[in-house]
Amino acid sequence: MVLDYQNRLEQLEQYFKEQNFSIAMIAAPANVFYFTGFNSDPHERFMALVWDGQTEGFTLFVPALDKEIAKNDSFVERIVSIADEEDPYSILKNNVGADIKKIGLEMKETSMFKHRNLSSAFPEASYDDIQPFINKLRLKKSRPEVTYLQEAVDIIEKVLGEGIKKVKPGMTEVELAAELEYLMKKFGAEGPSFSTIVLSGEKAALPHGVPGDREFRNGDFLLIDFGVKTKNGYCSDTTRTFVIGEATEKQKEIYNTVLESNQAGINAVQAGKPLKSFDLAARNVIDKSGYGEYFNNRVGHGLGIDVHEEPSIHGKNEQLAVEGLFFTIEPGIYIPGYGGVRIEDEVFINEKGEVEVLTSFPRELRVL
Amino acid sequence: MVLDYQNRLEQLEQYFKEQNFSIAMIAAPANVFYFTGFNSDPHERFMALVWDGQTEGFTLFVPALDKEIAKNDSFVERIVSIADEEDPYSILKNNVGADIKKIGLEMKETSMFKHRNLSSAFPEASYDDIQPFINKLRLKKSRPEVTYLQEAVDIIEKVLGEGIKKVKPGMTEVELAAELEYLMKKFGAEGPSFSTIVLSGEKAALPHGVPGDREFRNGDFLLIDFGVKTKNGYCSDTTRTFVIGEATEKQKEIYNTVLESNQAGINAVQAGKPLKSFDLAARNVIDKSGYGEYFNNRVGHGLGIDVHEEPSIHGKNEQLAVEGLFFTIEPGIYIPGYGGVRIEDEVFINEKGEVEVLTSFPRELRVL
Repeated sequence: MVLDYQNRLEQLEQYFKEQNFSIAMIAAPANVFYFTGFNSDPHERFMALVWDGQTEGFTLFVPALDKEIAKNDSFVERIVSIADEEDPYSILKNNVGADIKKIGLEMKETSMFKHRNLSSAFPEASYDDIQPFINKLRLKKSRPEVTYLQEAVDIIEKVLGEGIKKVKPGMTEVELAAELEYLMKKFGAEGPSFSTIVLSGEKAALPHGVPGDREFRNGDFLLIDFGVKTKNGYCSDTTRTFVIGEATEKQKEIYNTVLESNQAGINAVQAGKPLKSFDLAARNVIDKSGYGEYFNNRVGHGLGIDVHEEPSIHGKNEQLAVEGLFFTIEPGIYIPGYGGVRIEDEVFINEKGEVEVLTSFPRELRVL
Repeated sequence: MVLDYQNRLEQLEQYFKEQNFSIAMIAAPANVFYFTGFNSDPHERFMALVWDGQTEGFTLFVPALDKEIAKNDSFVERIVSIADEEDPYSILKNNVGADIKKIGLEMKETSMFKHRNLSSAFPEASYDDIQPFINKLRLKKSRPEVTYLQEAVDIIEKVLGEGIKKVKPGMTEVELAAELEYLMKKFGAEGPSFSTIVLSGEKAALPHGVPGDREFRNGDFLLIDFGVKTKNGYCSDTTRTFVIGEATEKQKEIYNTVLESNQAGINAVQAGKPLKSFDLAARNVIDKSGYGEYFNNRVGHGLGIDVHEEPSIHGKNEQLAVEGLFFTIEPGIYIPGYGGVRIEDEVFINEKGEVEVLTSFPRELRVL
């Protein structure tokens, strides 16, 4: 499968021309990956995809030690490698010339340190932020991207199916989290897309809880929120909540309320509708059941190369849904001191403007 | 055990006064942790330890959702929490006043985006980099810090002892890496301090190799380079190399050369000597054995809260070693297409200026 790098670069170039940039630099690793297929974190070393307004060409600058991998993986063929003892700003200047008036870059990605070095190399330059434009491109997922995202979802479901077989009273949250992350790698993932969340009993009510040494007990809620990053560079983010031993009537009521809310949220997803309506559809179910005060976060967020991307699916987002959006639907009820339930799925608004649900792991309450 | 936050903050304050800063902001999570004991990555949210030159006091600004943890963990008692819908720069300005002439901050940590926001809030401010001074403080480890580092070393050795029991022909690099990372959590670590390196056979020659699906075979070198970050926030970084099945005479020769080099490097460590002499002592052994061309990186690096810190132990570093330095000694021989050996230990220059070796896992060649 080939992602359409040519098209992405053309859209980028057109924007850069419209902005009259002398040069533009893309340095966030996720963005470099999006436009070139080269996936690498250079840490403190200099890496950038640079567009030169004079030659109207793209060049990928990489640390020398990444040169071979970049040559192999990058759609952009012109690669300049920079050795550790070289000054990247001199090399950049030698490549693009000194007559630079306006530079496009990702302002949140560019440090004051880098800014000072650029200002020394290009004393007359002014700077503009290109991240909002890039976010707009990354917002809409293509079919090949959805195939990669499906792979990430499939792996996490396989991990979940295998992982819950090990659950038994006395096991700790940390032990299960370690087991799940082991299975991720075993089933071919690059690794977790974020630190695996396993919360049991009353801890399942914590929105930012961290797995600890609490042992599973009969009657516990067991909330598992996790995802993988695949070797193709795409993320999943899925939650399922179980009960250990036997479920009380109250647990069933809470669970089924969240399940109904999740389904209502998914059913509401459609191109042309405001994003807030997906949140409100899910929230309405929980409000009506009387648990409204225990659902106090947004219903979902976009994901793709990063596990948190645009759009944000919250109750005040008036933005209209369009084809290509990819995001989570994850309502929950969190009762402090008692426990909580979240059911999280990944959905895509397809070419027809309709919702496609990528998760297939059963949503009905399962007692382990 | 209590780290001496009071003393660290006093040294910082004295430096800030000497620099005539109006305010100084520490935002790198590792630095905030070093000065307060509060360990958190705020991602895109605003977090900073701020010193105010007028009141000569420190305040910790944290995202609202971290407030309780910060109150619990931070040595700095004055905490201001910032909700997601609030503007952190207005809150900062309300706290420190508008009359700000000179701001100290970590320039590599501060984005252009943040710089612009600061410039809007404090239009007359100039900026100075405080990272070099902080690095100087963090460079010297105290005895309590070494106790935490010893804990990180102890866990990784326990993981290694348990992990190599699973090694057998047919197992893949990725499977062993996943197993080792599972054991890290099981034995109480927060997680790996960097992505675990397991390389076998000819791949053991790759300085930046990544574990793959290569299966272990009899006669392989097996190189394991890994470390943990403990719940106390300190890192280890250890390498051992094994042979699977039976070792050839050439493998033994290479291994024992690296072992002798490692020992020579460690023996050279002493306060008052130039750092380069530790590298050269280790390198000399490998050079004399005729493998010099296959050892082409520095012999070690500092570590602590981060897995790579100052000092850099390379052959041109004229800096004199002092008490409190903590670093790795990790010579290796890497023969392309054949394989490689690295033996890496953590060492500390103690209060008497003498070397203390924290690693105790046997260094002699072990055939699995």
